[in-house]
Amino acid sequence: MNFKEIIEEIYQKIKSIENKGELASYISELASVDVENFGIHISTIDQNNFGIGNWNDKFSIQSIAKVLSLVLAYRMVGEKIWERLGVEPSGTPFNSLVQLEVDNGIPRNPFINSGAIVISDILLSNLENPKEEFLTFVRSLSNNSELNYSNKVAASEKAIGFRNIALCNFIKSFGNIKNEPADVLDFYFDLCSLEMNCKELSDSFLFLANNGCRIVDNITILTKSQTKRINALMQTCGFYDESGEFAFKVGLPGKSGVGGGIIALHPNQYTIAVWSPKLNKKGNSYKGMRFLEEFTTKSELSIF
Amino acid sequence: MNFKEIIEEIYQKIKSIENKGELASYISELASVDVENFGIHISTIDQNNFGIGNWNDKFSIQSIAKVLSLVLAYRMVGEKIWERLGVEPSGTPFNSLVQLEVDNGIPRNPFINSGAIVISDILLSNLENPKEEFLTFVRSLSNNSELNYSNKVAASEKAIGFRNIALCNFIKSFGNIKNEPADVLDFYFDLCSLEMNCKELSDSFLFLANNGCRIVDNITILTKSQTKRINALMQTCGFYDESGEFAFKVGLPGKSGVGGGIIALHPNQYTIAVWSPKLNKKGNSYKGMRFLEEFTTKSELSIF
Amino acid sequence: MNFKEIIEEIYQKIKSIENKGELASYISELASVDVENFGIHISTIDQNNFGIGNWNDKFSIQSIAKVLSLVLAYRMVGEKIWERLGVEPSGTPFNSLVQLEVDNGIPRNPFINSGAIVISDILLSNLENPKEEFLTFVRSLSNNSELNYSNKVAASEKAIGFRNIALCNFIKSFGNIKNEPADVLDFYFDLCSLEMNCKELSDSFLFLANNGCRIVDNITILTKSQTKRINALMQTCGFYDESGEFAFKVGLPGKSGVGGGIIALHPNQYTIAVWSPKLNKKGNSYKGMRFLEEFTTKSELSIF
Amino acid sequence: MNFKEIIEEIYQKIKSIENKGELASYISELASVDVENFGIHISTIDQNNFGIGNWNDKFSIQSIAKVLSLVLAYRMVGEKIWERLGVEPSGTPFNSLVQLEVDNGIPRNPFINSGAIVISDILLSNLENPKEEFLTFVRSLSNNSELNYSNKVAASEKAIGFRNIALCNFIKSFGNIKNEPADVLDFYFDLCSLEMNCKELSDSFLFLANNGCRIVDNITILTKSQTKRINALMQTCGFYDESGEFAFKVGLPGKSGVGGGIIALHPNQYTIAVWSPKLNKKGNSYKGMRFLEEFTTKSELSIF
Repeated sequence: MNFKEIIEEIYQKIKSIENKGELASYISELASVDVENFGIHISTIDQNNFGIGNWNDKFSIQSIAKVLSLVLAYRMVGEKIWERLGVEPSGTPFNSLVQLEVDNGIPRNPFINSGAIVISDILLSNLENPKEEFLTFVRSLSNNSELNYSNKVAASEKAIGFRNIALCNFIKSFGNIKNEPADVLDFYFDLCSLEMNCKELSDSFLFLANNGCRIVDNITILTKSQTKRINALMQTCGFYDESGEFAFKVGLPGKSGVGGGIIALHPNQYTIAVWSPKLNKKGNSYKGMRFLEEFTTKSELSIF
Repeated sequence: MNFKEIIEEIYQKIKSIENKGELASYISELASVDVENFGIHISTIDQNNFGIGNWNDKFSIQSIAKVLSLVLAYRMVGEKIWERLGVEPSGTPFNSLVQLEVDNGIPRNPFINSGAIVISDILLSNLENPKEEFLTFVRSLSNNSELNYSNKVAASEKAIGFRNIALCNFIKSFGNIKNEPADVLDFYFDLCSLEMNCKELSDSFLFLANNGCRIVDNITILTKSQTKRINALMQTCGFYDESGEFAFKVGLPGKSGVGGGIIALHPNQYTIAVWSPKLNKKGNSYKGMRFLEEFTTKSELSIF
Repeated sequence: MNFKEIIEEIYQKIKSIENKGELASYISELASVDVENFGIHISTIDQNNFGIGNWNDKFSIQSIAKVLSLVLAYRMVGEKIWERLGVEPSGTPFNSLVQLEVDNGIPRNPFINSGAIVISDILLSNLENPKEEFLTFVRSLSNNSELNYSNKVAASEKAIGFRNIALCNFIKSFGNIKNEPADVLDFYFDLCSLEMNCKELSDSFLFLANNGCRIVDNITILTKSQTKRINALMQTCGFYDESGEFAFKVGLPGKSGVGGGIIALHPNQYTIAVWSPKLNKKGNSYKGMRFLEEFTTKSELSIF
Repeated sequence: MNFKEIIEEIYQKIKSIENKGELASYISELASVDVENFGIHISTIDQNNFGIGNWNDKFSIQSIAKVLSLVLAYRMVGEKIWERLGVEPSGTPFNSLVQLEVDNGIPRNPFINSGAIVISDILLSNLENPKEEFLTFVRSLSNNSELNYSNKVAASEKAIGFRNIALCNFIKSFGNIKNEPADVLDFYFDLCSLEMNCKELSDSFLFLANNGCRIVDNITILTKSQTKRINALMQTCGFYDESGEFAFKVGLPGKSGVGGGIIALHPNQYTIAVWSPKLNKKGNSYKGMRFLEEFTTKSELSIF
C-alpha cells in the first residue's frame, strides 16, 4: 500500500470518529474556526505529493512558526545561539517560570514560549527589517510568494498577551533580552500569526527531511548537522508536555500549533502536515495526533 | 570507511583527550574503579561485531538495567503498564519529588528512579522468584549464562539508599506501590548492580535494533510496536536532564548509567556500548558522550 | 464581662452553628470520634480556671505535642538547636519536599512534620529512655502523672506512615538525621499519640504564658527569652498554611492538631484549649478556630 | 532604665560593630547613599519621643510604603479587599511566581511585590487622583505637609523594573489586575519612592500602636479590629523570608524596606523607626535588625 492509499484510508476513519477535543478559545479568530475542517498533505523527497480534505485551506500555524524562526536565527548565528537557550524538554507547563528562575533567564528550549521569545530577540538584533525579511525567508521555503501574517490574529494576541509580556520582561530582568520587550513581543506575535494551508506547510518543512537542502533548487538552508539537530529538537520538545507521548506513539520529529496544525517529518523521506482545529487537553490537535499515530503504525515508517 | 575504522580512529582520539569528568563516589565500589578504563563494542544486525579497548572488562551497568527491567515488565503486562507511570521527559532533577506530588504518585517515565522503582514493584507482583527470573531473562538476551548481580555493589547501595527509600515510600503513600517498600527496594538495588562488559551489553540490547527479535534464534522479545516505543522512550528520557542534548548531539536512542556505561542503538542497524567511568556534570560518561557524538557525526548515521 | 461569661456565651453560640468541617479519616481512631464533642478550658496566670462542654474528655493531641517535644529539646540543647532547623513559615504544603531539597535537608520550622522529625532525632540523641523521659516531662508540665501515649493511635499511624517514612529518609540523605530512621519515626509516632483533655492541655502550656516558669512551683522550664521565641514560633508557624489567617483573625500564638485540638495563649495572662474534632480545609478544628476568633474579638485581648 | 537610655546605649554599641551588610545596588540612588548613616526615632502613645543619630535625615522608605497603601485601600474597601489577596507568609522568595500560578493570580499577602501591585490596582480604581490623594493621606498620618515622592528614585525603578512588569502582567493574565499594567506600575513605583526621616516614619505609624486612632486629633484611621489585623500581617509577613526570624528575635510587628529602613511597633506603647542602609542577605537592614533585637531584649517589651 502506498502513502496515498494509507492516507485516504486513515483520513476516512479518523474523519468519522467523535472529536473529543476543544477549540482554542482565548482569541475570537481561533474560536470561530469551523471545527469540521480536517486536511492532510504529504510532500516527499521524490516529489510525490498528495493532499486530502481541507488541505488547501489556510489556517493559523501559530507555534509551528517557532521552528521557522529558529531555523532563520540558527542559520544566521550558528552554534552561538545555544548560549542564549537550551535544548532540553521542559517537563510540566507548570514549571516554565520556575525554570527561568532556576536557570537565570535561559529558556530550556526554543519551542516553549520563553525560548521562542528569545529567538525573536535574536532575529531583531540580526535583521534590518525583521518582519519583511522573515516573511521573505518563509516564502522562499514554501516557494509561495503570497504567504502572509494575519494582522487580525496578531492584533488579538497582542490585546490579551499579558502572560507573554510577563515572560519577556522576566527574561529581560535576567539580561537575556537585548531589545525593548515591546518590540520583541510585537515581532513574536506577528510570527505566530502566519497563515498557511497544509500543502504550504509540508512544502516549507521539506528541506528538514532533505538534509537541509531545498528540493526545488538544491540550495542549502541549514547544514546536514544543523538539520539533524533541529529534527532532534522537534522530537524531544515539539509537543509541549506531550512530546514524550508523540515520540512514543508516532515516532517522528514534529511540531504542533494551537490553531490545530501539526507538521511531522521522516528524514530522507517526507513531511506531512495535518490540520484539525479541536485540541486535546495538552493543546495538540486531537484528530491530528490520532491520524499521525495510525499513519506511522500503518506505514511502519517511524524513525525508531 | 566502515564501522571498525571509524571506531578505531575516534577511540584513539578520545582516549588521548583530557577527561574532565568525575568518578561517581557515593559508594566505594564505583569510586575505586580505574579511571583509565575505556572500552567500546558494536553489535550489528548482520552480525558484524567489533570491540576495542576495555570492551571485555565487566562494569556496573547501574541505570542501564532500567531498560531491561522495563522490557520484562512491558512484555508481561502490556500497555496496561502505562497506568502506573508516564512516558514524558522529567525536566530538571530538581523536580522529581514535586512532580510525584503534582501527579499523585505517577512517575513521569520509567527511567527516573521513581519510575524504575514502580517497574520493580510491577515485576515483584508478576514474578515468583523475581531476582532469579530477571537474571534468567537478561542472560537469555545476552546469550551469556554467567551474567550476575554484584552483591557488594547492591549491599553498598542499600546501606546509603535513603533517598530511594524516601522515593519508594512517597509513591507508596499515593498507593502506586503494591508490595512492601523494603522488598521493592531490595529487588531494585539488585537490578542496578548487574555487571556486564561492553560486548554483553551491546548483545543484550540488539533485539531493540531488530524490531524486537533476538538475532540468534529470531525469538520475539517485544512486538515491533513495543520495540519502537521503548526506543522512543530511550530517545526522550534516557539521559536524565541531558536527554535533549544527547538527541541533539548524538541523535540515537540510548541509556546511560552512573557506572560510566552508555548503550545506544540505531534501529535496523546496530547497538553500540561505550564505557568510561568518569562522569560529566549531568551524570553521564564524559568520554562516552564525546565518543558517541563523534561516532554519529563521522558515520552520518543518526536517526534524524 | 469576665472570661467565664465570655466563654459561656460564645460556647453556646458556636455549639449551635452548623459544623462545616470534616473528621480526619486517615486512621480509624480519629475517624470514629464523636463529632459532637466540643470542649474548652482556660487556665490563667492568677489561677482562675474554667472549663465548659467536653473539657474533661481525652483526645489525641497529635501535632500539638510538637511544641512540647521542641520545648524539651530546646531546654536540653539550647540555641544550637537552630543549626538543624529553621524558624520561618513554610508557605504552601505543596512546598514541603521542595523546600527540603532547596535547603539541603534543613526543615523550615519545628512544627511541620520534617521539623518535628528532626526534633525527635535530637531527643533520641540526648535522652537515655526517650519515650519514658518525654512522658515524665509532659506529666510534670501538666502536673498529672497519668498522662499517656495511645498505643492504638501510634500503631495505626505507623501502619500507614509512608509519607513520614519518606520525609525522614529524605532528610537522612542530607545527613540531618543522626539515628536510624526507623527509631526516629517510632518515637515520633508515639509523641503524636499523646492524649489529654482540655484542662490538661491548657495547664501543660501555662508556663509559656508565664515567662517560662511553671505556676505551681515556680520552676523554670525555659528562660524568658526562650519562652518568647517559642511563642513567636507558634504565632508564625503554628497553623500550617493557615498561620497567617490565625494571627490575622485570632491574634494569639497557638498550635493545632489533626485530632481537633487547639492550644492558644496570651503572654502574661492565660492559655486556652479548645477541642472539636471536625477540621476545616486547612486541617485545623473548624469550631475551634471560630471559637477563638470570637473569643479574642469579644475579650479584646489579642496581642496585636 | 527608660527608652531613651536603652536606645542610647544600644545605639552606641551597634554603631561601633562591623557592618557586614551590603548596600542595595540595583539603582544608583540607593547605591550612592552614605553607608555610615544610622538613625533611630521612637514615638510613644504618651508622646514621649526621642531620636538619635541620623534620625532627621530623609531616606527612601521603599517597601515600608506598602503598609501605608494597604491601610488606605483597607480603609476604603473594607474586608472585601481579601478577595483579591491573601494573608499568609510566602515561604521562600523562590516561590513567588510559582505561588501566583498555583493560586490563580491571588498574591499570598500584601507585602510581597505581587500583593502590593494588586493593592496599587485597587487604589487606582478607587481614587480620582491616586498619587495626590495617597500623598495627602500619608502627609496627614505624619502630620507633615512636606513629605513627597522622589521623582529620581521612581524614574530609576521604572527604567529597570522588568521583574515588576512581569509580575503585574502575570497577575493581569489571571484577571486580578483591573487597570492598565503600565498605570498600575507607574503608581506602584511612585509609592515606593516616598522619602521620610525616622521621626516622620515613626509618627506616621503611631496610629497602628493606638488602636487605629491618630494621636494628635484622635481621628480614626482604621477600626480596632482592622488595626490588629494590619499588625498581625506585619508580624507574619513584614520581613520577606526573614519574618519568622524577626518574630523570633525581635518579637514585634514591623516592616522593612530595601533603603535600609525598618518600622516596628508595640501595640498600646510605641513605634520605633531605625535606618541604616546596608542590608543583610535577606534584604533587611543589617544594623537595624541588630538594634531592634537588642532593644526588645533590653526593654523586655516584645509582644510574646
